[in-house]
This record gives sequence, structure tokens and C-alpha cells, in this order.
Amino acid sequence: MSESAKTNPGNFFEDFTVGQVIEHATPRTVTEGDRAVYGSLYPTRFAVPSSAEFAASVGLAPHPVEELIAFHIAFGKTVPDVSLNAVANLGYAECRFHQPVVPGDTLRTSSEVIGLKQNSNGRSGVVYVRSTATNQRGEVALEWARWVMVHKRDSGAAAPEVVVPDLADHVAPTDLVVPTGLDFSGYDFVAAGEPHRFGDYAVGERIDHVDGVTLTDSEHQQATRLWQNTAKVHFNAEARPDGNRLIYGGHVISMARALSFNGLANAQLIAAINAGAHTAPAFAGDTVYAWSEVLDSAEISESVGALRLRLVATKGRDESMTLRGDDGKYAAGVLLDLDYWALIPR
Amino acid sequence: MSESAKTNPGNFFEDFTVGQVIEHATPRTVTEGDRAVYGSLYPTRFAVPSSAEFAASVGLAPHPVEELIAFHIAFGKTVPDVSLNAVANLGYAECRFHQPVVPGDTLRTSSEVIGLKQNSNGRSGVVYVRSTATNQRGEVALEWARWVMVHKRDSGAAAPEVVVPDLADHVAPTDLVVPTGLDFSGYDFVAAGEPHRFGDYAVGERIDHVDGVTLTDSEHQQATRLWQNTAKVHFNAEARPDGNRLIYGGHVISMARALSFNGLANAQLIAAINAGAHTAPAFAGDTVYAWSEVLDSAEISESVGALRLRLVATKGRDESMTLRGDDGKYAAGVLLDLDYWALIPR
Amino acid sequence: MSESAKTNPGNFFEDFTVGQVIEHATPRTVTEGDRAVYGSLYPTRFAVPSSAEFAASVGLAPHPVEELIAFHIAFGKTVPDVSLNAVANLGYAECRFHQPVVPGDTLRTSSEVIGLKQNSNGRSGVVYVRSTATNQRGEVALEWARWVMVHKRDSGAAAPEVVVPDLADHVAPTDLVVPTGLDFSGYDFVAAGEPHRFGDYAVGERIDHVDGVTLTDSEHQQATRLWQNTAKVHFNAEARPDGNRLIYGGHVISMARALSFNGLANAQLIAAINAGAHTAPAFAGDTVYAWSEVLDSAEISESVGALRLRLVATKGRDESMTLRGDDGKYAAGVLLDLDYWALIPR
Repeated sequence: MSESAKTNPGNFFEDFTVGQVIEHATPRTVTEGDRAVYGSLYPTRFAVPSSAEFAASVGLAPHPVEELIAFHIAFGKTVPDVSLNAVANLGYAECRFHQPVVPGDTLRTSSEVIGLKQNSNGRSGVVYVRSTATNQRGEVALEWARWVMVHKRDSGAAAPEVVVPDLADHVAPTDLVVPTGLDFSGYDFVAAGEPHRFGDYAVGERIDHVDGVTLTDSEHQQATRLWQNTAKVHFNAEARPDGNRLIYGGHVISMARALSFNGLANAQLIAAINAGAHTAPAFAGDTVYAWSEVLDSAEISESVGALRLRLVATKGRDESMTLRGDDGKYAAGVLLDLDYWALIPR
Repeated sequence: MSESAKTNPGNFFEDFTVGQVIEHATPRTVTEGDRAVYGSLYPTRFAVPSSAEFAASVGLAPHPVEELIAFHIAFGKTVPDVSLNAVANLGYAECRFHQPVVPGDTLRTSSEVIGLKQNSNGRSGVVYVRSTATNQRGEVALEWARWVMVHKRDSGAAAPEVVVPDLADHVAPTDLVVPTGLDFSGYDFVAAGEPHRFGDYAVGERIDHVDGVTLTDSEHQQATRLWQNTAKVHFNAEARPDGNRLIYGGHVISMARALSFNGLANAQLIAAINAGAHTAPAFAGDTVYAWSEVLDSAEISESVGALRLRLVATKGRDESMTLRGDDGKYAAGVLLDLDYWALIPR
Repeated sequence: MSESAKTNPGNFFEDFTVGQVIEHATPRTVTEGDRAVYGSLYPTRFAVPSSAEFAASVGLAPHPVEELIAFHIAFGKTVPDVSLNAVANLGYAECRFHQPVVPGDTLRTSSEVIGLKQNSNGRSGVVYVRSTATNQRGEVALEWARWVMVHKRDSGAAAPEVVVPDLADHVAPTDLVVPTGLDFSGYDFVAAGEPHRFGDYAVGERIDHVDGVTLTDSEHQQATRLWQNTAKVHFNAEARPDGNRLIYGGHVISMARALSFNGLANAQLIAAINAGAHTAPAFAGDTVYAWSEVLDSAEISESVGALRLRLVATKGRDESMTLRGDDGKYAAGVLLDLDYWALIPR
């Protein structure tokens, strides 16, 4: 009887080289089932992904799924190759949604290594990748950059040349992709749930989204599996000394986005993610709340505006909506600081 | 930096006026995904919603989803406007299903205020609404009345004129809507799971449905989210002093209906809900059982009969099937007392 | 007021006779929703069921669901008639998948009693059945034999003649059904996730699948309900003295199969199950790991090979991959010993 080593150990820091392109495994067809499971896991009520009729009334047919469904699926594919040996996911940038994803679309993802920087301790380093998800027609569905701290297999391995990519602080409004046919001129604000349009939001305005959701292990596991994300810490209570399952950061993103309906019901579509930080771990039993800040705004077309929003998830409600303390560090309880562009009727 | 108040505080008692019509937000397209998630949350085995082939064999194509899926979706839409500030949901009446709901249908709901009665304490009042869910063709899918006790925002606000609507004790058999094409003459009792037909049930007969299901927080949260029901107490362990999440009454209705298969397998379709009372709260860890009582029966067509059934859900099994104690109050353990009409082969 | 006994008590040992055919209730239409819920409950990443594009590229269109979805649905139908009063599920044999099951297919199951053997204690006996699931066209989708120990209703009932069927130790490679059109000649190993093909696996080789999943009550209940499996012990914490819900053995099968992706990513299709034993109970909180052993191999067509695999699920990881102790008994921690044939590119 022989033993084999056919299983995937993941890549370590010294396995990456700048310019390397990784084709990630397991293409995935999106279905109406994904929409339903997503709706059972997050309290989403945005009218476009909820109603095929509403979506068609603003020019979107067939019926798109939430951008975050596409994001989580596409992102999950990168985990076995990029972040199986990650210490931490450090950030996102330049994420753009190029077209709506609809049931029947099949997504696959590839990543290019765009930067490497070994840590001074010699035991790990930061890997920068730009990932692109394409559909069955070979068209880009979405793309994003992220950087992640990865263990070295061998701390004695030589450090690579330092390459730190030049990533935009945020996606410029002129680079936002508006879905073909999108037209908010006949938008039904009553059906959508709130009267507030583009011009009703002021830069600097903050919105406490009021509602909270207490997290459970079953739910975050189901969500994370749906994205075929294989990171052990989310599923295996034996993988951490404290016996807790660490909740996938994307679960907090989706929860906060869904909660943001209450005050941002018309911020229907996510056009880009400018930046994102998971600032503290979340576990079952935590109650997640959210607040938003309007960072910027831009007129996109006659009927479409874009709001640049900071979406903050907190453990426990913080009616003061405090992002950072006097020391400049994230305030206690802040779980997520996400900077994104949403499309909203003018 | 300014603050905003764009979030929905819900309506308080003094915000309602008799005759007012509220168009509820977020139209919702029903999909095969809803059927699957429902089947993962409730032990349903009724042949019509389980099998497209069986449904077609009784004249129902395309393949309808369970009436309760339509009910929960349509009901959920009313919560942000009608019962966000509710003290208690007091009752249902005159709920009729006008046509089967099938995947691809998009439901929206509107409600008319049909009654108001301030409580003597001056701090709350009862609001009566008649709600109607229509599909993408503007046809009525279902309608119902309910009344709910709602907080006042300001206890000093003047009491409105008392209007208490005249609601039927039960839907008359002649008012039941039989789905177009429904024909039980070729009904396959073996495939359906039990041999009992209309004539085998006697008024007064009680059926102990035997099986029990222990509730979990993840499951009731997933169900309630699927219906886009936003009531805080179902999702937020910090919203109640005891730290428990109160289970949506509709979760108990669906669980009891699914359990009733065992003894009522041929009561395939719900045609009307005559009355309903959630008599005690349910929480994760409770084990729910059900029993039914035949209240009445009516011949509808050559192949279709209707049974008027009392469906009782209990915490813990009560083989004595006791609804009320000697004091006339609901017996300990009774969670739900639901009065409905089901269609069954003659 | 009368009482009725319309509920299903299940069959007891003395209710079965050799040659008896039972048509099981509740035909069930498979949908894309089932695929999504399955993907939320098991960490499956096999490219064929994940991607309609990938499946079509190997000749499988429309897009098949996992064979285990079909198996669990077909198996679940037998529970109310065969194993509601079971002491234990003793084994499986001769399970063959005759054609892929695709969304829109409706499955029904019938069983023939092929053997009976009363236990010496006179209180129970072993029932052998061969079950066949057919689709809406009357074609066989899958078939299997199983034997189960069932309580007697009356220990004084006469023992039937002993009939023990002759069941094959394993399905012969020549009896495996290869799906019409299956062609692995253009197989995309990068998309599938691993480079290992038929010839890379040696008989006797063992593969530790590394990853573990901690089980929850909500998840196993949801899975088991999805299959309309009615066994009380899976759902009712009051049905067992220890207050635990026993996890459906099929949940462990699906979990182990999904985990086996890591090392067997190209073992895309299950063609047959040769044997299976649930060797210990599993409960919420257990962390399930898996390992496989290559038992045999067979060339099937120019592009398709078959591996006969032992799939072992364990509670806690056993890197030694020990099936049995020196005493010949299953090692502590072994939950499942499943013997199956998988189709893999040559």
C-alpha cells in the first residue's frame, strides 16, 4: 500500500512570481437557486434583484442576480490558489462590475500576480493579484485587485524583488461601467421602497441602517460553501485554538449591504468596490449592524447617478457611527470598512 | 458632516386612516429556488407542489408552488408598513387564494386600512387591513384581512373614530376559488401517499400527525428572510430582553402544515384561511407537533371536495389533542390555531 | 367527536413478504434549486455538476445534478414504507446510476422485497429490498439494494421462511452504465482543478483529503428534509433519550464525497455504489474528515476510466488512515465505509 500526495497544499509566498497567471479551478453556473439561497441568508430587498419585472422596467433583462453573488463566486475560486495559506486578507481595490450576471451564466476566474513584498520577519510576504472573472462568452463579468499576506513554506527562501503595484485610491466615475440598457427614467420609487433619489443624498451624510442580525454558524457556512470558498477556518472548529469558526469576510459584506437597504433602498446596483478592509473577526452570536457615509457623488447619465459610499459593519449598534478613535485606529466593534460606488436614480 | 433620517421608522397607530391604501415595497419574483429552500426548511411532501408531473396530472401546469410560499411572500411585504411597530398580530380572516402561483410570477402587495380602534390605555390601537397580492399581469393571486395591535408614537394623539370591520367567521364554500383546470378524477392516491379521500373524513374527527420537529435559529431566520419579512424580533437577539429570537408565526404555520401530511396527504391545496391565532411564542429548541380537526366539509365539483380544518401546532406532543382548558383558554403548549379550507379528491 | 387513525405507522417486519412490490409516495421534480441548496450544504467543487459549460464539454447536456442528489431523493421515498421502524440500516449493494438526472426530471421509487430473515431474538428481522427510481419517461434513473433491520410489531408473529438474496460483492466494471455521450477526450484539467488522471492512481493508494467540516443541526436537517426523508431521529430532539438529533447517514456520505474533491477532483461521476456501512452515529459538533483508498480500476472507453474507491469518513482527522483495528473492528472515529465506482478521464 502506497501513500500519495495528490491534495492541494496551496501556494506559499515563494511560489508566486510577478507576471504569473493562474487559471483557477471549477467554473460555476449561476442559477435561480443561488438567488433564493442568497435571499434566505441575507435580508436583501433591493427591487432589481428581487423582481424580474422591476429589473426589466429599468432595462435589465434577463433578471440579474446581486453583484455580490457574482463577486463571492468569482472570489471563491481564487482561494485555493491564492489564499489557502494566507495570514490575512489585507485589502481590495479597483473592483469593477462589467456587466450584470444572470442565471445561466458560467463564471471562471483567473489571476495575475502584480506585486510581491516579503515581510521583514522573513516568514511571510504580501502577494498582490489582479483577478478577472469571465463568462461563457469569454466576456469580462468583473475584475478586482486584492492583496493578501501569505506564509512562506521555507523562511530561508530568498526574498523576491519588491514590486508594489500602483493601485487607484478609488475607481474614477468615468471608469464605472453602466449596464447596457440601464434607464432609471421610469423608476418606480414606491415599488422600490423609498423616495430618496440621487440628489437627496449629500456628501458627508451618514445613515444609521438601524436593523441588526445575529449571526449563526449554519448560515455563514452555507453562504461560504455556496461560493465554493475552501478556507478551512470558516468550516472547521478544530482549525482554530478557540474552537470558533471564523466568519468569511464576504458574509459580513453581504449582510451589511442588505441591511443598508433601510436608507439606501434605491442604491440598486454596485458598480465598483474601491477599497475594503475586514477590521475585526466576526463569529456566530455576534449581532451585526451597519451604517453608511456618502463619500462622493457623480452624474453618470440622464437618469443614473452614482454615490460613492462607505459601508461600515459593526458588532453591536453604534448610533454615533464612529469609524475611528482618537488614535486613528478603527473603533471597537467595527468589522468592515467598505468603499464602493452604487448606481441610483437621478 | 450632517446626519440624515432616511430610514423607515414604520407607521404608528396615528399614522393610519380608514380608507388609506398602502402600496407595499419590493415586488418579488417567485422561482424554483424558493421551492427548494422551502423544501429544505419544512418537511413537506404534498404531491402537487413536489412533482410537476403529478400537478399536471390534476390539471395544474405550470407547476405551482405551495400556497404558503405565496402567502408568506405577500404577507412579508406588509410588515415594514403595517406591523413594524406592532405589539402583536391578533388575527387573520377572509384569506382566499385566487390562482396558483408559479415560478416566474412576480408578486406585489397593497393594503387598505379597513378599521381602527384605539385601546383604552391610549398607548396603542388595533389596525385592520385588507391586503391584496397581485401578479405581473395585475391579476389577484391572494387576499386576506388581518388585524394587529400597533404602538402609538404619541400617546397624546387624538383617538380616531372607532371602525371595526365586519369580517366573516369563515369563507363560505361558495366563495372558494378552485384553480382553473383542477380535476382530481384521475388522482393517483398511491403516488400521493395515502388512500383517504373526501368521504373518508368526518366532521369532528381529529388526527394526531405524530411527527415532531425541533426548531433551530438558523432555519427560522432563513425562512423568514426568504419572505423579506423585516420584523426585528426574528433576527436580532439584542431586540428582546431574554436574548431569544422570536420565531415568525408563519414558520410555525408552515411547519404544522407540512407535518399534517401524515394523515392529510390528500388535502393538497389550501383554498382559504378562515382564521388564525398565534397563541404562544416559539423559540429555537422547541419541538413542534401538530394535530388537526375536521370542522366542516363541502362538495365543490364532481372530483373536488373541500375540508374545513383546524390545524393546531403544539410545543411538545399532546396526544389528547386538547385545544382549550376548562377555563376556556388555550391549553399550555398550543402555539397555533389555524382554520383553513383544503381541497381534496372526492 | 371521533378519533381517527389515518397516519402512517410504517411497516413492521411481519408486514413484508418476499416478492412484494411497494410503490413509494411523492414523486419529486428535481430543480436548479436543489443544486444550489446542495452546494450550500456540502463543499462540492466537481466541475461537471458545478458548470453547465464544463458538463457540455464532456458531452453532458442538459446539466446533470450530482448523482447523490438523485440517490438521496430516490432513497428518501423508501423511508416511510421500508425503514420507519428500522433499528439500523445495515448495508447497500448493487447501486447503479443508469443515466444522469437533470433539472426538470421527476423521480419516483418502487421497491421489491427480495429477502427476509428474522433475528433469533424474535423481536426484529432483516428486510432486503431492491429499489428502482424511474423518471417521468418511465426510464430507470438508478437502482440499488439495501437491507435494514426492522422491528416486529408483535414478537409472537410467525417467522417467515428465510430468504437471503445473493448480492454481488461489487458491481462488475462491465455492468457500469456510462452516460450516453460522455467523452473525456477534450477534458480541461485546469478548469477541473487537478492534473491527476486515471493512470495516475494506483490500486492500494490512499489519499488523505485533509479538510474537515464541523456539522450543525440546522444543516443536516435541511439536507435531510430536502430529500423528504421522514425518519424521526433526524429532526426530533425528543425522539432519543440523549436529546441529540442523529444525523442522516447520507449527510455524511455527501460531506465525505465533497471533501474527496481534494485529491480526487477528476473522479467526476459516481457510476455505482458497491457497498456502504454507517459504522458509527454522527451528531452536530462532530468534525468530519475523509480519506480514500483505490481498490480497483478498469478501462471503460477510450477516454473514460473507472476507479473503485473506498471512501472513509471519520470524526476527527486520522492521518494514519486506519480502517480497522487489530481486532478487525472499525477503528474508533470511523463513521462511514463506502465502496463506489467513479468515472475519471484516462
